[in-house]
Amino acid sequence: MALFRERLRDASRKNNSLLCVGLDPDPEKMAGRDILTFNKAIVDATTDLVCAYKPNFAFYEAAGLEGLRALIETIDYIGGRVPVIADAKRGDIGNSDRFYAQALFNVYHADAATVSPFLGYDSLQPFLEHTDRGILLLCRTSNPGARDFQDLTVDIGGRSVPLYEAVALKAQAWDTEKSLGLVTGATYPAEIRRVRGICPDMPLLVPGVGVQQAELEAAVQAAVDRQGEMAIINASRSILYASVGKDFAEAARVAAQELREKINAARAKALAV
Amino acid sequence: MALFRERLRDASRKNNSLLCVGLDPDPEKMAGRDILTFNKAIVDATTDLVCAYKPNFAFYEAAGLEGLRALIETIDYIGGRVPVIADAKRGDIGNSDRFYAQALFNVYHADAATVSPFLGYDSLQPFLEHTDRGILLLCRTSNPGARDFQDLTVDIGGRSVPLYEAVALKAQAWDTEKSLGLVTGATYPAEIRRVRGICPDMPLLVPGVGVQQAELEAAVQAAVDRQGEMAIINASRSILYASVGKDFAEAARVAAQELREKINAARAKALAV
Repeated sequence: MALFRERLRDASRKNNSLLCVGLDPDPEKMAGRDILTFNKAIVDATTDLVCAYKPNFAFYEAAGLEGLRALIETIDYIGGRVPVIADAKRGDIGNSDRFYAQALFNVYHADAATVSPFLGYDSLQPFLEHTDRGILLLCRTSNPGARDFQDLTVDIGGRSVPLYEAVALKAQAWDTEKSLGLVTGATYPAEIRRVRGICPDMPLLVPGVGVQQAELEAAVQAAVDRQGEMAIINASRSILYASVGKDFAEAARVAAQELREKINAARAKALAV
Repeated sequence: MALFRERLRDASRKNNSLLCVGLDPDPEKMAGRDILTFNKAIVDATTDLVCAYKPNFAFYEAAGLEGLRALIETIDYIGGRVPVIADAKRGDIGNSDRFYAQALFNVYHADAATVSPFLGYDSLQPFLEHTDRGILLLCRTSNPGARDFQDLTVDIGGRSVPLYEAVALKAQAWDTEKSLGLVTGATYPAEIRRVRGICPDMPLLVPGVGVQQAELEAAVQAAVDRQGEMAIINASRSILYASVGKDFAEAARVAAQELREKINAARAKALAV
């Protein structure tokens, strides 16, 4: 199979989109639908508008075994039309991580997975062995608490940089298989720009657009590569719950169309510079 | 319900044990048993010898929905006789983390969970709201890759310390509910000692004993509090797979007894100093 970044690029070009829809089903907002019915309606309404889907595992795990069954069936329903990013933020020592990689790639059949860098290189190895899958390392997350550790200044290779830059520097060095990417929250465009400078070719997953009210334009311009690609701009709640009534799928399509256009406008400006 | 650390202390005193058995069922080593049958046999053989059980979620997730069903039934079978630590190493932004906490504490009914500190304080808040559960933050893990980030020198509050010490310092400041603990790998006793100095009262989960052949005595002596308690010394493979034949449960009991005694001998030395 092709590299994740190639499958991502194909979907992105086909749909002229950097938009990723986060499939985060919140039981209080799904217009009375069960998870699978809700997800299928969202996928039907948006599959020609996105470059990827990103289910966050927390929402499915909280719904018990039935939730996880719906997740498997949702990914099966997407059926490879666009890549699926398992947003599971796993990370463990090698022996255990081998089983996490097996779960995310062989049980859930995800095309890529988010992974925490905190345990270091050997915790990534079992994921990297799946060379046709993407591994998106948490780098600079979109939440306020990201400052607690990710912004601490560290010494690495004789330089003083924030911890999140150390993650980007190590990721660039480790990426022999061209399967790594990074997660850089939309709320920090200046930090995204520094990460993009360190890792010019990697996919950058950019959550935090929408409900988190980030400066979309600045984030998109900072995240895209020199071809205006390899940025995965994720929105979840602002799409899924654009309406919490029976018209949720139609409303999601309208919201996704609008956001795709805004992202494309920002991208056009970045390329014009 | 009492605090996690109190339930841990009760079980530890009742069984005169700091030993935690890691329930990490590896399909290649379970003597032909299914996960639930294997786990029940291990629990029956060791429940009077341990202070806690620690299932690592990776092994169950890799076995699909049936694996997770076996995990739920295993925790139900333990039935509160000793605390159960969900070793899931979760950590996400607040909105998603609320669902992870719900999954681990309300779906799986764990008494405590391991959580990654990488996303900072707001990623812990949804866990901390469950004041009767323990939250064990990854601090200094037992694997070689731990050096990649956890050992980097950071500046915090005008001091230069390794990142793992910054985690311990923040955890101590954040622990208003007395529900936090830390994960400190057995392979680094000097680091455990520094963490114990920063957090004198917290439970320290110490994995990496056994197959990882750490210096058990040094790790135990560094990890215990002034009363010789609050250390959770975890062994998985060396207990579970002491025999991979039909006598696996009896062999697990013998291995657990021996390890408990070794740990208690090390603890006695620590208290005699």
